[in-house]
Amino acid sequence: MPAQSYVNGRYVLHDSAAVHIEDRGYQFADGVYEVIAIYGGGIVDEKPHMERFFRSLGELNIPPPASARTIAIILREILRRNRITDGALYLQVTRGVAPRNHAHPPDMKPALVVTGRAVRWPQSFAAVQPIAIVGVADERWTRADIKSVSLLPNILARMSADRTGADDAWMIDGAGYVTEGSSSNAWIVSNGDEIITRQLGHSILAGITRQAILKHFGDALKFTERAFTLEEAKGAAEAFQTSTTALVKPVVKIDGSPIGDGKPGGVTKKVFEAYLTHFAAHASAAPSAAPSAAS
Amino acid sequence: MPAQSYVNGRYVLHDSAAVHIEDRGYQFADGVYEVIAIYGGGIVDEKPHMERFFRSLGELNIPPPASARTIAIILREILRRNRITDGALYLQVTRGVAPRNHAHPPDMKPALVVTGRAVRWPQSFAAVQPIAIVGVADERWTRADIKSVSLLPNILARMSADRTGADDAWMIDGAGYVTEGSSSNAWIVSNGDEIITRQLGHSILAGITRQAILKHFGDALKFTERAFTLEEAKGAAEAFQTSTTALVKPVVKIDGSPIGDGKPGGVTKKVFEAYLTHFAAHASAAPSAAPSAAS
Repeated sequence: MPAQSYVNGRYVLHDSAAVHIEDRGYQFADGVYEVIAIYGGGIVDEKPHMERFFRSLGELNIPPPASARTIAIILREILRRNRITDGALYLQVTRGVAPRNHAHPPDMKPALVVTGRAVRWPQSFAAVQPIAIVGVADERWTRADIKSVSLLPNILARMSADRTGADDAWMIDGAGYVTEGSSSNAWIVSNGDEIITRQLGHSILAGITRQAILKHFGDALKFTERAFTLEEAKGAAEAFQTSTTALVKPVVKIDGSPIGDGKPGGVTKKVFEAYLTHFAAHASAAPSAAPSAAS
Repeated sequence: MPAQSYVNGRYVLHDSAAVHIEDRGYQFADGVYEVIAIYGGGIVDEKPHMERFFRSLGELNIPPPASARTIAIILREILRRNRITDGALYLQVTRGVAPRNHAHPPDMKPALVVTGRAVRWPQSFAAVQPIAIVGVADERWTRADIKSVSLLPNILARMSADRTGADDAWMIDGAGYVTEGSSSNAWIVSNGDEIITRQLGHSILAGITRQAILKHFGDALKFTERAFTLEEAKGAAEAFQTSTTALVKPVVKIDGSPIGDGKPGGVTKKVFEAYLTHFAAHASAAPSAAPSAAS
């Protein structure tokens, strides 16, 4: 069965899934997106993902393309048509199609695209490939908290990592503090087993994986939300990054310097294992589990 | 004759001109563009536009989708097929189509889109509608000198203007200085008839209209390239903005305060008239006039 995607009201063959060249997503990056994990046929942390999606739309004054319940049904239909039980969904909404002009006409019809793909999730910490990262200047706009498709600086950060043979980049703000990874939240573990990640604000995305870790494991682990420099990270006992598709990924090298003993650390392992349990437990199957907030 | 556009090697009906949903322009704003004026059938300042286009591509490490000469031929074919003698061309190149991932595969095939539309150019300064602008925080990334499609902050700036009943917005950097308009360069005229516009750098686009004015009329008019605050602009004798499609547009109100006597000024009129002469004189018709630099 060839892959199918959802584009503006229709399920189409993925190979021919297209949007108009004057879709404002293409010409102006005027849109938002979400990536959501699928585990055992269930949609992981669907409610916070959909809440963030509707918040991003609201920040850009893009009206929702459909109710939360309708979107929940579309997500499941994409899973069904592509026979995905473990994988990821990608949702994108743009302001829609109009003759090119910075100012947009009133009452535009927003465009909705949904794709799905299979992902083989790691079942143990040993299966997770540790990574090396480099620090790069954070060149992004001032509203990284909005999950927009205006991702060019993130792409350039990732390209910088590639050029130096690293796997990813952590971005550093004008004051010298790490904001986040090119598509992840950044964390370090102090020598006292304190787990540190930057506080929320306009300069980082409120990662759903980040939020789940802080919310559910605060009793068993010691967390602090504050900014840290790349120098502090280089001297940390452990480092890792989190995202919807990378889950909890050990960072074993920063700018060429090994972190701790250069191997994935024990605290990172605890966070990974706790998150994997959460991941399995928070996968919702039925559309009735869809959030009502934005319906 | 219905409008036609060029998309990746084919001339297609504009209404059905489409790109794949996994074009990186759509998902990552991973692309660049140009807008070029057409006057009397000729392409205005084609050489500097194409030089900037190839520079933007180079900054993002996107290989040119075709030689400068081939692109020059495509531009003329779009004009011919759409019977445009006065108008504007829009060119966009993105890194191409690939399964969504921040890291892109090597050897991608860049995507090229060209559209054209008719524009009725003002033939006299009296025909130009003066505008009111508001100052907004410049929330963009640090590389506004690259003409990328990562334009969401520009769109939000324009929306801020709309909300306050103004026509456009000038953006203000962290130090309090005006960078540029949401899609134009910003200029003021001092009480001593000195014409001031921000110096080039990473925080503004090197506008082709800006460049033409500075290059060709420096003998007749007095120019200074330096940053100015919105307060200085409010106290200026005149203000205006320049862009490929707006040419030279008088700004008669900033944040609700009239500039000078609240009417388009005499120096702005001189700049407009000089530029209109340049505009007509620098329209190139034959593809042989295409730049050889990037062929």
